[in-house]
Amino acid sequence: MIVTASINKIRAIIKKNKNKTIGFVPTMGALHQGHLSLVRRARKDCNFLVVSIFVNPIQFGPKEDFKNYPRNLKKDIQLLKKEGVDLVFSPKNEQMYFYDFSVFVDEVELSQTLCGKSRPGHFKGVCTVVSKLFNIVNPDIAYFGQKDYQQVLIIKRMVRDLNLSVKIKVLPTVREKDNLAMSSRNVYLKPQARKDSVCLYEALTFAKKLIKQGQRSPEEILNKMREIITSKESTKIDYMIIADAESLKELKVIKGKALISLAVYIDEVRLIDNIVVNIKSFMKK
Amino acid sequence: MIVTASINKIRAIIKKNKNKTIGFVPTMGALHQGHLSLVRRARKDCNFLVVSIFVNPIQFGPKEDFKNYPRNLKKDIQLLKKEGVDLVFSPKNEQMYFYDFSVFVDEVELSQTLCGKSRPGHFKGVCTVVSKLFNIVNPDIAYFGQKDYQQVLIIKRMVRDLNLSVKIKVLPTVREKDNLAMSSRNVYLKPQARKDSVCLYEALTFAKKLIKQGQRSPEEILNKMREIITSKESTKIDYMIIADAESLKELKVIKGKALISLAVYIDEVRLIDNIVVNIKSFMKK
Repeated sequence: MIVTASINKIRAIIKKNKNKTIGFVPTMGALHQGHLSLVRRARKDCNFLVVSIFVNPIQFGPKEDFKNYPRNLKKDIQLLKKEGVDLVFSPKNEQMYFYDFSVFVDEVELSQTLCGKSRPGHFKGVCTVVSKLFNIVNPDIAYFGQKDYQQVLIIKRMVRDLNLSVKIKVLPTVREKDNLAMSSRNVYLKPQARKDSVCLYEALTFAKKLIKQGQRSPEEILNKMREIITSKESTKIDYMIIADAESLKELKVIKGKALISLAVYIDEVRLIDNIVVNIKSFMKK
Repeated sequence: MIVTASINKIRAIIKKNKNKTIGFVPTMGALHQGHLSLVRRARKDCNFLVVSIFVNPIQFGPKEDFKNYPRNLKKDIQLLKKEGVDLVFSPKNEQMYFYDFSVFVDEVELSQTLCGKSRPGHFKGVCTVVSKLFNIVNPDIAYFGQKDYQQVLIIKRMVRDLNLSVKIKVLPTVREKDNLAMSSRNVYLKPQARKDSVCLYEALTFAKKLIKQGQRSPEEILNKMREIITSKESTKIDYMIIADAESLKELKVIKGKALISLAVYIDEVRLIDNIVVNIKSFMKK
């Protein structure tokens, strides 16, 4: 496994392997089983596998946790070596962003809601860095987790609208035994907060149950979800939404494929989670 | 020569020729000797040559000349055939921009001045379409004319900042016998306006002469240029600037490599022109 911070070295290695199917898993490091599920799938699909580790400064807001975002490059590299990764790209900030960096890629519709609303500029930062990484690595297939549902939708839109030739594969959210969605930020959770954090998935599955039982009012469902989450003292809801799973427009009545998505602060730690409910699949039963 | 509007067909042909050096000349059609100078140079440099013809709607402002921009696809294709072009890409608007298109590439520093100031959103449209075309054609070298000096600078910045792997080659402005810079928009000029239009280059060369003689005050030089241009009744100055040729920052004292750039309406027709003056080259003499 080659580990390098050099863009030129990455380009040279990619060029040598251009006749292979290049799989790519972009990460911010602090790898967990969610990342590793992407790596394992990519390892099966592709005969050359690249993973990037880069905590992208421009997708963090000025008051967000860029400085304190968990970093553990040594451990990450060990994990990736075990998975049989071919190439790890771990650039420094100044290699990715020159002092007079001035070109951004921006999605302007899907990013207006959910996390984009709470974190202005976040998806501009994501689209810009993912563009850069795609252009450096030139992958055939790139892998993302459904936990970042909105991110995946925006990246797919970017691929379509900018005519990128990469294929985007999305894999299910990987969860802890108690169903907390895996996240690098989970390490921030103190013991009580960690216990409370299961209420996110509880709220989501309760919503799904209500829909299964015939409830079609997002308002009613969100009220129940709010009850579940606010019953824990450590929680503060950032947003909760039931939206069309393609357009991300808020639903007034539940129909089609609905995304139930939320962001909740547990103490100071902002966690996100989501599930997609396909109404038709219930109606068939 | 293959002519197609299909993105998929372009991709398939490019894939077949991926071991060749792919040259690319993006145009908005209405081809003139300026475009053809790019095509000829690309033909010499590369063993597979692609030209695109696409009047890009999103780089025109709402009050600009998108509808009336000169179009002559038949004649353009004849010209390109004579030059031995391999592939012409002439997509329709709806192939380039889906109804819910929502991803843009935006340069935010160099585009704040000169034409970017007069035409808000123009360079965002340019960067977005050029990104798309680069991603579709995947060229090794792309060719642009110095007449669009600011555009070239912005595209080079985009290539750097988004880590595109294309090389940008810039060729000198091609001029009519009386030194009017070639432009598709020149066909709009009525006989008197056409006569008056030579004052743009006259003003630029007079500025150069003044600098050669030792004048270092942009203010003084711009005053003289203004006199030359406003002596023609049909003219209305959009902007005139003497700027650092790299940063495009306005110069208070002329030094280094200076760009002298202007945009002038002749009747209703907006024309641009520029020259670069390297002070050091005068000082050596």
